[in-house]
Amino acid sequence: MNGILDPKPKAVILLSGGLDSATVLAIARDQGYECYAISADYGQRHGTELDAAARVAAALGAVDHRVVSIGIGAFGGSALTDPTIPVPEHPSSGIPVTYVPARNTVLLALALGWAEVLGARDIFIGVNAVDYSGYPDCRPEFIEAFRTLANLATKAGVEGQGLSIHAPLIDMTKGEIIRAGTALGLDYGLTVSCYQADPDGRACRTCDACRLRADGFRAAGLPDPTRYR
Amino acid sequence: MNGILDPKPKAVILLSGGLDSATVLAIARDQGYECYAISADYGQRHGTELDAAARVAAALGAVDHRVVSIGIGAFGGSALTDPTIPVPEHPSSGIPVTYVPARNTVLLALALGWAEVLGARDIFIGVNAVDYSGYPDCRPEFIEAFRTLANLATKAGVEGQGLSIHAPLIDMTKGEIIRAGTALGLDYGLTVSCYQADPDGRACRTCDACRLRADGFRAAGLPDPTRYR
Repeated sequence: MNGILDPKPKAVILLSGGLDSATVLAIARDQGYECYAISADYGQRHGTELDAAARVAAALGAVDHRVVSIGIGAFGGSALTDPTIPVPEHPSSGIPVTYVPARNTVLLALALGWAEVLGARDIFIGVNAVDYSGYPDCRPEFIEAFRTLANLATKAGVEGQGLSIHAPLIDMTKGEIIRAGTALGLDYGLTVSCYQADPDGRACRTCDACRLRADGFRAAGLPDPTRYR
Repeated sequence: MNGILDPKPKAVILLSGGLDSATVLAIARDQGYECYAISADYGQRHGTELDAAARVAAALGAVDHRVVSIGIGAFGGSALTDPTIPVPEHPSSGIPVTYVPARNTVLLALALGWAEVLGARDIFIGVNAVDYSGYPDCRPEFIEAFRTLANLATKAGVEGQGLSIHAPLIDMTKGEIIRAGTALGLDYGLTVSCYQADPDGRACRTCDACRLRADGFRAAGLPDPTRYR
C-alpha cells in the first residue's frame, strides 16, 4: 500500500429518466464506476423524462450528463414519437406500437462513441427482457451482438482492451428492480416512466408504462412514490 | 406474364455527399432498388457535403432523402467535428485523427431505424477497407457484425425476413470505385470529398481526402472534375 488509490474506472450509462435506467446508474455507482450519464432526445413525446434524467444524474453523483439530440423521431412509426399513433392504454400482444425503430441500437451506438472519447470500456443499459419481452432489442442475444460489434468498431477493440456492455436488469422483474434500487438508496420519486406525463412530470396512471410501474411497486411490497395527476 | 410488374425492393442508402457513397447510390439504383437516401448531420466541419448529398440524391433519382441531425460532434475527439484538432495534410500512420468515434455504428443504426419504418430489407454503405484501412469500422468483419446485430434488433429479424448490409466498395481501390461510378453515368463533379471545402463546395487540394480522391482519378485514368479553390 503506497497510499495512491487507483482511479475509478469510467462507465457510460444510458439514462432515460425512467425507473429502469435510474436503477442501472445506482448499480454502476455501487460497483465503483465513475459514471458518465447520457440521454438521447430522439423526439419522444415524454420530454419530461429528460428533466428526470438530469435530476437522477445529479442525485446519484454522475460526473457528467450529456443530452444528445437525434432525429429518429422524423422516421415516424412509433406512438412515442409520432403524434398520429395513439398511446395504448392496455397491454398489447406482439411488438407494441410504442416500439421506437432501432432505438437501443442507436442509443448504444451513441454511448459507444462517447465511451471511445472518454476512454471508458464499460457501457451500461437498462434493458429488461422480462417485462418488455415484445421489444426485439431488449434480449440478451441483442446485447451480446452489440458487444461483438463494439469490439470490432472501435480503437479499444482494435487495440485489444475490450469493451463490455452491462445490462444488469435483463433478467429481473420490475419488483426486483425496484427492490434493488431502493436498497441502494435511489429515490424513485425522481424518475418518470409515463408515456404521456404532464410538463411537471406527473403520470397518467393508465398507459402501459404506468401500469407496469405500479405493478412493480406492488410486487416489491414498497410504497409507490410516483406523482400522479 | 400478367402485365403487373413486381414493385422494386426498397433500399436505404447512407449518402454523405462524398465520392464513395454517391457511387454506392448509383450501384444500388443499377441493381434495381428503389433508393431512400439518408445523410447525417453530425456536426461535421464540411457541411457542404450535405448540399452535395442533396444534389446527388436528386441526380440519381432517390425516392426520398432525409438529413438526420445527430449530436455526436458534442463528444469531440475528431478533427472532423472538433475545431481544436487540426485537419492533417499528410498521411498519418495508425488511426487518423479524422476518425469520428463510432460513426459507422451510429450511421448504420440510423439507417436501420429508417429501414424498419419503410419495410426495407437492404441497407447500403460506402465503407472501403482498402484506402481507409486505419478506420476500424470500415472492415468486413464490422459489417458482418452489424448484419448479425440488425437481425437481432428488429421486427424484420424477429419475424425472419432478414436484413442485408451491402458494402459494395469494401474491396475496391479508389480508382476502381471511380471507374465503376463513371460507367454508371455518375457525375463526380456533384460530389464533395474535401475535409475543409469552402461554402461553395470547392476543395482544398491538400487534405488527406483530397489527395486520395485526386490519386483515384489518376489511377482510373479519368479526368478529375473536382472544383478546387
